[in-house]
Amino acid sequence: MTILTNTDRAYDKALRKIVTRSRTQGAGVEKSVRTILKAVERGGDRAVLRYTKKFDRLALKLDHMRVTPEEIKEAYYHIRKDEGDSLRYAAERVRQFHERQRTKTWMYQEQNATLGQMVTPLDAVGVYVPGGKAVYPSSVLMCAIPAKVAGVRRIVMCTPTPKGEINPYLLVAADIAGVDEIYRVGGVQAIGAMAFGTKTIAKVDKIVGPGNIFVATAKRLLYGTVGIDMVAGPSELLVVADDDAKPAHVAADLLCEAEHDEDAQVYLVTTSASLAKEVVRLIQVQLKGLQREKIAAKSIARHFAAFVVPTMDEAIEVANAIAPEHLTLSVDRPFDYLEQVRHAGALFLGRYTPPAVADYVAGPNHVLPTGATARFFSPLSVNDYVKVSNIVHYTKEELTKAKDHIVRLAHIEGFDAHAKSAQSRFA
Amino acid sequence: MTILTNTDRAYDKALRKIVTRSRTQGAGVEKSVRTILKAVERGGDRAVLRYTKKFDRLALKLDHMRVTPEEIKEAYYHIRKDEGDSLRYAAERVRQFHERQRTKTWMYQEQNATLGQMVTPLDAVGVYVPGGKAVYPSSVLMCAIPAKVAGVRRIVMCTPTPKGEINPYLLVAADIAGVDEIYRVGGVQAIGAMAFGTKTIAKVDKIVGPGNIFVATAKRLLYGTVGIDMVAGPSELLVVADDDAKPAHVAADLLCEAEHDEDAQVYLVTTSASLAKEVVRLIQVQLKGLQREKIAAKSIARHFAAFVVPTMDEAIEVANAIAPEHLTLSVDRPFDYLEQVRHAGALFLGRYTPPAVADYVAGPNHVLPTGATARFFSPLSVNDYVKVSNIVHYTKEELTKAKDHIVRLAHIEGFDAHAKSAQSRFA
Repeated sequence: MTILTNTDRAYDKALRKIVTRSRTQGAGVEKSVRTILKAVERGGDRAVLRYTKKFDRLALKLDHMRVTPEEIKEAYYHIRKDEGDSLRYAAERVRQFHERQRTKTWMYQEQNATLGQMVTPLDAVGVYVPGGKAVYPSSVLMCAIPAKVAGVRRIVMCTPTPKGEINPYLLVAADIAGVDEIYRVGGVQAIGAMAFGTKTIAKVDKIVGPGNIFVATAKRLLYGTVGIDMVAGPSELLVVADDDAKPAHVAADLLCEAEHDEDAQVYLVTTSASLAKEVVRLIQVQLKGLQREKIAAKSIARHFAAFVVPTMDEAIEVANAIAPEHLTLSVDRPFDYLEQVRHAGALFLGRYTPPAVADYVAGPNHVLPTGATARFFSPLSVNDYVKVSNIVHYTKEELTKAKDHIVRLAHIEGFDAHAKSAQSRFA
Repeated sequence: MTILTNTDRAYDKALRKIVTRSRTQGAGVEKSVRTILKAVERGGDRAVLRYTKKFDRLALKLDHMRVTPEEIKEAYYHIRKDEGDSLRYAAERVRQFHERQRTKTWMYQEQNATLGQMVTPLDAVGVYVPGGKAVYPSSVLMCAIPAKVAGVRRIVMCTPTPKGEINPYLLVAADIAGVDEIYRVGGVQAIGAMAFGTKTIAKVDKIVGPGNIFVATAKRLLYGTVGIDMVAGPSELLVVADDDAKPAHVAADLLCEAEHDEDAQVYLVTTSASLAKEVVRLIQVQLKGLQREKIAAKSIARHFAAFVVPTMDEAIEVANAIAPEHLTLSVDRPFDYLEQVRHAGALFLGRYTPPAVADYVAGPNHVLPTGATARFFSPLSVNDYVKVSNIVHYTKEELTKAKDHIVRLAHIEGFDAHAKSAQSRFA
């Protein structure tokens, strides 16, 4: 936990280390991931069951891979009514926001030509849902609801179940979101099954959702064989705070992100040296007694840094250089800075937008680009679940007008069959 | 060149072979691509020059990597005026089409919350332009103009120059399109230089454009380190023709795509057995004397198949199963079939839309998904050159209303620091 002011010698070096933090990871695990993917491509269900036994220590049977409608119904009895209500509240807000992301087919006439683009939903998508210690029904909503809004006909969900039991919150969230098929399969074998297809799990066109380094590597290696949402790494939050920000809120926000993962990366950039000091003190105070104190403490110890800068403009420049997953602007008139912000997965504006509001209920997607990939990746959205086909229609009149240009350009490129495909219409 | 009717035993097998054609390629070349990328990441310019000498047999000097403004000016003297006019005509049409793809930042108030998404252009993109026997100024336009429309500040172009001379058409096209920096560097070393940055070539955020298997593999391996447009393979055209289609036009269209590459894949699906026969005959006739006769003949011999089906509905189903890069509907009332088409990179509708019109002058992008990836990838567009940041702003009143849901969902997921980040505002 260092506080660095921009006159310190160590400031540039510390900032540079964050700016150049690794984007792609997992080169070390590629070999074993490849082995599992190849086995699943060749062996199908049998390979899936073999790896499920090996990694999840679960002797899963073929006819038990898919979760039954009865199991989904039963899940509702294992959660409280108010919990179901909160999941439905979140789902409805996520749905409403994503409805606005819908893009439509458009065409226009230009003299005698018709040009445009046709938007169609993907046929089938796979949602990966991590298992393990924590469960994330909120991610089920974030991944599946935009697919539903896009019009995807078949939404598949895979999640590991180390004891064969699937978490009831995940089942209820999947049911609320409109997931069509759920399989108790996880890890690289699940990604392989969805990408290549097995007898039990038909192949999908795109795989989305968070996962550990093995799952993320599998998705990256399969990019192009299927679509994937993005290459996701540990969570990140950068808080930009002005002199009037409340240190207790800033500390709470930083810990909120830090409790995700020992490698979660949280930073503070502020114009106030005294605020930086107080935030550092309060982080230690607030850490005590957190359920995930050890994880959050490790994240803070490993990665946290506070940068003290002379102006808000410089603070925003630091934010742009870091290109964080989450960027909190705990400042007066946060909307005034929007034009200056260039790279961030999501912006949390003002004093009353803690990360958790956006993680759960605000509506915008919480699957966001990490590791500085906010420079070129976008949050998960309805756009991830559709694709475009260009539309071109020429009439004879319009082709007549364009013909000489086509022939000339074809000859420049040495493609006389291209020229002839236009000329043949006039032979 | 086989003609198969859907009652033939071989029909299903032949169709299945096309449907399952490999999407990702280049596993065999991965090792050498990795070696070059690593060398460029570590060695910068020196490694770039070393590989340029090795692969392009060009003893390039450091201060000669970048093309000068004078060289660009001079290029105009090496092309005819009407050729320049045709490039400008194409550029203008491409620009006009892509202007319509622009997406804007939007926000809305919902009670006391503000939600939305902010759209910002990428800072810098790299356009790869293949060298070798053929040159493609049209691809320079297709890759660079949408970047310009998106508002990208820095557009870099890399292209190999085996004799140190850069093709004047490429320079003029780059100049018309608004490319900012041009380097006479190609191959994997160019992709590495743009992805990692060297002293001479600053890093970019996304790399687009076609390339051979080595370039395509380099882009795929770097996905996540930088953005890439898609994983592109050999060209494809599927012509759906009804009984009234003109066999000579269909044959010319198929050859237009076949002349691209020995592995270009062209197919015919028709309701007319006699048309299929006549197209097959005319392909042989039209092949004779083409500049690229050998390449087109090999593509036809290796890959061409004609499928005869009983109905237009079934023809469209075959097209959907194949998910071709280009889909020509040489039918009466082609617009009637749009709703049935699910997977195609681009649709060429009617009797007077030869592929060349869309390759060069229609306006929609000609960088399109191949190898059945039209199931999940979209044509290159302005969207490739922007990214989104989600926007969330809550007020105290709105957070008060949402707080209990946030706390409940955080506890479901075992994240009490998440709950506290909301609760801290009310402490």
